[in-house]
Amino acid sequence: MASHLGKADDSMSWNSKTVITFGVSLVLSWFLVFSLISATCLAYSFAGTWVGNPDSGRSDLYPEILRDEAVARLNELGKVSDADGYLERTFLSPASIRAGKLIQSWMEDAGLRTWMDQMGNIHGRTDGMNASAEALLVGSHLDTVIDAGIYDGSLGIVCALSALKVLKTTGNIEKLKRPVEVIAFSDEEGVRFQTTFLGSGAIAGILPASVLWITDKSGITVHDVLKENSIEVTEESFLQLKYDPESVWGYIEVHIEQGPVLESLGLPLAVVQGIAGQTRIKVTVSGVQGHAGTVPMSMRRDPMAAAAELIGLLESLCKDPESYLSYDGHCNGFAADSLAGSLVCTVGEISSWPSASNVIPGQVNFTIDLRAMEDMEREAIIIELSNRMYHICDRRSVACDIDRKHDAGAVVCDPGLSSKMKSSAYSALKKMVGEVQDEVPVLMSGAGHDAMAMSHLTEVSMLFVRCRGGISHSPEEHVLDDDIWAAGLAVLEFLDQHVT
Amino acid sequence: MASHLGKADDSMSWNSKTVITFGVSLVLSWFLVFSLISATCLAYSFAGTWVGNPDSGRSDLYPEILRDEAVARLNELGKVSDADGYLERTFLSPASIRAGKLIQSWMEDAGLRTWMDQMGNIHGRTDGMNASAEALLVGSHLDTVIDAGIYDGSLGIVCALSALKVLKTTGNIEKLKRPVEVIAFSDEEGVRFQTTFLGSGAIAGILPASVLWITDKSGITVHDVLKENSIEVTEESFLQLKYDPESVWGYIEVHIEQGPVLESLGLPLAVVQGIAGQTRIKVTVSGVQGHAGTVPMSMRRDPMAAAAELIGLLESLCKDPESYLSYDGHCNGFAADSLAGSLVCTVGEISSWPSASNVIPGQVNFTIDLRAMEDMEREAIIIELSNRMYHICDRRSVACDIDRKHDAGAVVCDPGLSSKMKSSAYSALKKMVGEVQDEVPVLMSGAGHDAMAMSHLTEVSMLFVRCRGGISHSPEEHVLDDDIWAAGLAVLEFLDQHVT
Repeated sequence: MASHLGKADDSMSWNSKTVITFGVSLVLSWFLVFSLISATCLAYSFAGTWVGNPDSGRSDLYPEILRDEAVARLNELGKVSDADGYLERTFLSPASIRAGKLIQSWMEDAGLRTWMDQMGNIHGRTDGMNASAEALLVGSHLDTVIDAGIYDGSLGIVCALSALKVLKTTGNIEKLKRPVEVIAFSDEEGVRFQTTFLGSGAIAGILPASVLWITDKSGITVHDVLKENSIEVTEESFLQLKYDPESVWGYIEVHIEQGPVLESLGLPLAVVQGIAGQTRIKVTVSGVQGHAGTVPMSMRRDPMAAAAELIGLLESLCKDPESYLSYDGHCNGFAADSLAGSLVCTVGEISSWPSASNVIPGQVNFTIDLRAMEDMEREAIIIELSNRMYHICDRRSVACDIDRKHDAGAVVCDPGLSSKMKSSAYSALKKMVGEVQDEVPVLMSGAGHDAMAMSHLTEVSMLFVRCRGGISHSPEEHVLDDDIWAAGLAVLEFLDQHVT
Repeated sequence: MASHLGKADDSMSWNSKTVITFGVSLVLSWFLVFSLISATCLAYSFAGTWVGNPDSGRSDLYPEILRDEAVARLNELGKVSDADGYLERTFLSPASIRAGKLIQSWMEDAGLRTWMDQMGNIHGRTDGMNASAEALLVGSHLDTVIDAGIYDGSLGIVCALSALKVLKTTGNIEKLKRPVEVIAFSDEEGVRFQTTFLGSGAIAGILPASVLWITDKSGITVHDVLKENSIEVTEESFLQLKYDPESVWGYIEVHIEQGPVLESLGLPLAVVQGIAGQTRIKVTVSGVQGHAGTVPMSMRRDPMAAAAELIGLLESLCKDPESYLSYDGHCNGFAADSLAGSLVCTVGEISSWPSASNVIPGQVNFTIDLRAMEDMEREAIIIELSNRMYHICDRRSVACDIDRKHDAGAVVCDPGLSSKMKSSAYSALKKMVGEVQDEVPVLMSGAGHDAMAMSHLTEVSMLFVRCRGGISHSPEEHVLDDDIWAAGLAVLEFLDQHVT
């Protein structure tokens, strides 16, 4: 297999307004979301762009650290893989350990005191002027999915370290009025143990100690993996990983958007209003198995045809929830049209039993992943969806089991911290390109992030960075060098404006 | 796992008119098929039933051989399995070898001379009064699907041997005016090598010698499997397995219906007018893979939603082809309404890639199995279906690949031989229950059978036997003891009336 690793093509330049192949109508429909979630966005102009070119010559832009070195580090980290030919780093795998050591060396290069904790998180801390003040935590994850891109997670770690290196270089790191601690979390993707946030969850104190005993596909426990890496952890010491909320001022995280909105707007950075709530459902449709040649169409109770109708319903409902919601007791208190922007529904897995081309299946299973910014709206959609699904199954004389496997409430980012992040991003962009006609947009995040776990510990804020084609979890994932620079400069502005 | 093997519940009695839960309208729609395919069926009466009880006391009904022993043999053969707890016998597996030996012992019990040929088919032959006359071949298959029922294939072998045993018992076997040879074919289901008719195909001479070199999932060839069983075969000796058409008078086969029509009519036996033609298609829908949380519904190019729409189209089109066919050049010469009865379309397999609940798939694959009695009609449907599928894929901006993997033309059973079979079945039923108000119906077969292969060698006729719920390829498969008796008696009548 040819290697996917290394630096991706950088053919999209900073000022080329990236027009992707989706129509203006799509952009307009997403603009509705921004309008709803942020009054400050009302001034947004589609005609707007960033005026002028980045001025690499200016001494306060630090392109050599915030862009060139950051890009080099992302490429270097992206080569640290457990797999040959593609990127894979799961919880405490050999490549994760190597990646952690590399990050630790960059932390030291930025003047931070470093350590690895008992869940494999890598920490780098500077005390600033007051070691006992509430600390700002800055983080993202060092683990990856299988066949991953090089930016997901790593970008947030590298940008934070770049910004701190600038502060060290300028001598301003000593002027920080509170400790700043960068944390590279050991597990956000949950690939190995199917449990996300093993790293940030331990620090936020949201995981029970029993998590040490969950097993991967080979029957190896989290505890075993830690021990293999010479980390001795007990249930008691695990629980002590939780940070004291009194010791923390807030948490910020830079992350690639992993979606197409910023690219469609032609803008590099956005502040995150919140992380969508999510429900995962497993649907089992049971019919009557039969011979593909001998059961007349009119006599079939075919779960495959039923599943197709159910998936069609799901798509229609999630594309246009206003047309479906019945506005009964469940729907009071929200405007269904807001759903049309934030609601996303996906069938990612499907299988049939017995799965033979010449047999009418007896059973078809599929998954539903459903996300929305408002928990109450999500609940209303699920009730409406379930009712309509049962109705279809009744009509087709097949049995439907709708099993709600997982629910996660939406997380709202802290408005105060997000406001600071927004002004920092704006300042960064203004410094880079001069006059700025556009505000920094406010997006919702449909993906989960470490900030979800950290929101249980402290106030959180996130900065999204544009990625090419909205693609993530893929070797095709790409972020423009200048966007990496902008993100690092935004973190630097945040530290300059709000922590020094 | 609890054993599925053994004798299934026999709660449905001979005279309880089996009314299943499908409406009369369905029966009427199938009646249309019978009307179209057999003018002799016009006299058929829905009110009709078999009058009277089977008279076990009559000496010419042989219930102890044709029913009791046949049922016992089917149960015994149904326990010969390669799997623990369910029935599985694939081409020349250890259980198939054991099953072959058991069948061979029953052949000898019926006075037949036996042998196994180089493709593992088990033969039992009696020469009758004229060893050099054209032989009647009677057969079915001894292999099974995975988690099979005990009647599929085995019923035809057992009924033929029961009838011959009666002839031996009565001394009439010597009066056969031509040789009769029972063949238990080694492979009809094609489970192991994905190629059906390895057994009957060799005897009919429709398989190339290269079939010896096709491999199963483990890379083992047909030749290897034969060698493992001490069968030395060369390409030359393989081709010599083909029977000389001049030496054969005809081929008859008893088989369970594997569909619900006879049960819905309340009748035990039917003659087969022909075997539907079949097309197998593999559909690949390619879209744009993405994160389930971050790509707005309106920006998706989701192959799963597209596949659901395509499967919905397939179902609609096959349920109601008249509404879809455009009556252009492709459709001349046939009445689309005849399709509505015989057309059956099935999606048995489906899969998504990468198959993760939180990822919009990049690709979805599914199979289509499409069968119709008229080849030209099947062709017209496939053209119409493909055009509409491409149109849907274009509208959704996903790529559709419609790959036609396999085509088999319809097989028409020989009218002369079928007429003999029909009168034999009628006589058998009349003997068993006295006055008979109903004709023996003429059905089409949507399933493939060894008779398809044998039709290339000689004239063929088939007798269908009612099965409970139309269920086959399942441990739930069941045939009433009295229906087994009726089938055996029909074969006996055929031999009595047309071969002695």
